[in-house]
Amino acid sequence: MAVPPDSVGIIQPQQFRWDAPFALQCGETLAKFELVYETYGSLNAERSNAILVCHALSGHHHAAGYHDAADPKPGWWDACIGPGKPIDTRQFFVVSLNNLGGCHGSTGPLSDNPATGKPYGPDFPMVTVSDWVRSQTLLADHLGIECFAAVIGGSLGGMQAMRWAIDQPERLRAALLIACTAKLSAQNIAFNEIARQAITSDPQFHDGHYRSMGVNPDLGLMLARMVGHVTYLSDDGMRSKFGRELKSGDLNRGRDVEFQVESYLHHQGRSFSSQFDANSYLLMTRALDYFDPARDYDDNLVKALSAAQCRFLVISFTSDWRFSVAHSKEIVNSLVEARRNVASAIIESEHGHDSFLLPIPRYFDVLKAYLNRLTEEARDAG
Amino acid sequence: MAVPPDSVGIIQPQQFRWDAPFALQCGETLAKFELVYETYGSLNAERSNAILVCHALSGHHHAAGYHDAADPKPGWWDACIGPGKPIDTRQFFVVSLNNLGGCHGSTGPLSDNPATGKPYGPDFPMVTVSDWVRSQTLLADHLGIECFAAVIGGSLGGMQAMRWAIDQPERLRAALLIACTAKLSAQNIAFNEIARQAITSDPQFHDGHYRSMGVNPDLGLMLARMVGHVTYLSDDGMRSKFGRELKSGDLNRGRDVEFQVESYLHHQGRSFSSQFDANSYLLMTRALDYFDPARDYDDNLVKALSAAQCRFLVISFTSDWRFSVAHSKEIVNSLVEARRNVASAIIESEHGHDSFLLPIPRYFDVLKAYLNRLTEEARDAG
Repeated sequence: MAVPPDSVGIIQPQQFRWDAPFALQCGETLAKFELVYETYGSLNAERSNAILVCHALSGHHHAAGYHDAADPKPGWWDACIGPGKPIDTRQFFVVSLNNLGGCHGSTGPLSDNPATGKPYGPDFPMVTVSDWVRSQTLLADHLGIECFAAVIGGSLGGMQAMRWAIDQPERLRAALLIACTAKLSAQNIAFNEIARQAITSDPQFHDGHYRSMGVNPDLGLMLARMVGHVTYLSDDGMRSKFGRELKSGDLNRGRDVEFQVESYLHHQGRSFSSQFDANSYLLMTRALDYFDPARDYDDNLVKALSAAQCRFLVISFTSDWRFSVAHSKEIVNSLVEARRNVASAIIESEHGHDSFLLPIPRYFDVLKAYLNRLTEEARDAG
Repeated sequence: MAVPPDSVGIIQPQQFRWDAPFALQCGETLAKFELVYETYGSLNAERSNAILVCHALSGHHHAAGYHDAADPKPGWWDACIGPGKPIDTRQFFVVSLNNLGGCHGSTGPLSDNPATGKPYGPDFPMVTVSDWVRSQTLLADHLGIECFAAVIGGSLGGMQAMRWAIDQPERLRAALLIACTAKLSAQNIAFNEIARQAITSDPQFHDGHYRSMGVNPDLGLMLARMVGHVTYLSDDGMRSKFGRELKSGDLNRGRDVEFQVESYLHHQGRSFSSQFDANSYLLMTRALDYFDPARDYDDNLVKALSAAQCRFLVISFTSDWRFSVAHSKEIVNSLVEARRNVASAIIESEHGHDSFLLPIPRYFDVLKAYLNRLTEEARDAG
């Protein structure tokens, strides 16, 4: 296929190696680590036009463009990143990485543990959003980026942007928090726990040592993804997409898959279980559950956000019931109370939490306008 | 323990046997069947004061009172049924049964298949809400009840009440549909399918032949119940009940159960898997998915409900996101359009779908007032 003209084109992932000990929040230390990342666009002479894109639960470094001309699909946020797109690569130098603990090339459960010479598997230490932010600062140092124009993320990616703002206040000018929350609700945690339970109770999980047994907890991962997927969509969105349509012509009143929505979920689940590492999934969902920046500030989100210096854009979607509009409002209200510079937008969408991945016109207009203003202000100040 | 004075007391379950062939909607025929049921209160001379209580997904015949004085807990709707309670047993004769396909004493997967002399297991035929209603009419005949004062149910129980109204219009004076829907949404079906997938992918399920293998798909059932349970509660209700409270004092950032909500769900799941038969659970969730009375009336709910002659009370709960207020409004609007006698109430509650089981004062006041009026009108007419 021909690469479209508004694509960032063929992209070569790069590797960043950190060969010194890296202490994690859990108390354990990685002797060294690698991060796989991609960049789109060019860093300007002032090194002031860099944007960091942080990925969500099941994301990775490949956010835009194609790995080769035969690639059937571009990166996961290709609609948003490219020449003329909301994150305009004619203006910005975009950095996108796979997080520590991931399974797409960065050091994680699939990597060899230098202490044993064997893959970490379930022994990979617990990582937190704070750990990710610190590892990302090392990558930024390596790339010569002292201060990002913006750190952007949806969902778990937004939590990283929030942590950047609080933990590294002088290293970003803007944090864009999309479909984000300041902390998970009990219901959110419950769904994550169900996903973990599905994985760990799969007899092929073998306490996380499935790889060395030559198997994979496919059914557990499939179930985990099916649960997750339903929470990413909305009731209305599923109604429009599937209604009560049957896979075959009429109810045969049997026990097999019959409604379209069932076969869709099975497909999603199966395809995920062939692509994602179970131990990574457990790590990522735990990082979500533990995220709670207010915790270090007397459970006071206003106090936590008062540490930030950057400006904020907070975007939520009307039908998102995983991290609902109320979650974003809590962030916005706390930022207002902390007297930070904050803009916010609530986008009408029936696509639930997944909206943050979709090219919804008003959403993209808001992103584009906000980022354009950042560029203009930097130019005026320069 | 002493049985409380407002209890229906010690109750002896009874057995109804139907020794003739019973054709099911799926096309298969049961050679015979039994239903276990309980009754509370006394049938009056006119046989006009009977109320049928229909159970929901995981319910059974034991709705009120105790099976013996040492029973730690009364029946599942004891708060609602008894002398002076909303379903007042000084006025009404209450019938409560375990449905066909269940696992609490009525003919179901655990029963012997007369054709083989062995338990049906996964070969028990698919049952629908219509089948249940027809089997319930046979029980009513047996008890000499020509016309129920009311048929009452929450959730799947409400669907049975709706089917009674449509299929047996002359055999009930009122249908009380609580936390009910005229059909499941794609999201509802998706959650049911995840539950089924959890059960059937448990290696101890053995295609439903677990009993003959001497095992039980405990982990699958546990997961299925965990998923179900989260959908029965509300986000707000879980927040009030659990918040982000930790089971132990502080985050140890490990991989074990740590939040209260996790340990609660594990407990719920485990206790369910020791009490409920997996094949029954599959049957019950399929009956939920297939319920769609409008289907036989050109997908027109108004037309379907026009077949009913009884009056209706439709009750929904503000935080129920499984069968939300909108589902009840659809029923009410269709009843209005069908020019049926309908009253409705939306009850404020943070307890989600589970609200229908709880003694919420306004909810119970509505039930009580409605049922009292039924009695008074019957007396005035008599």
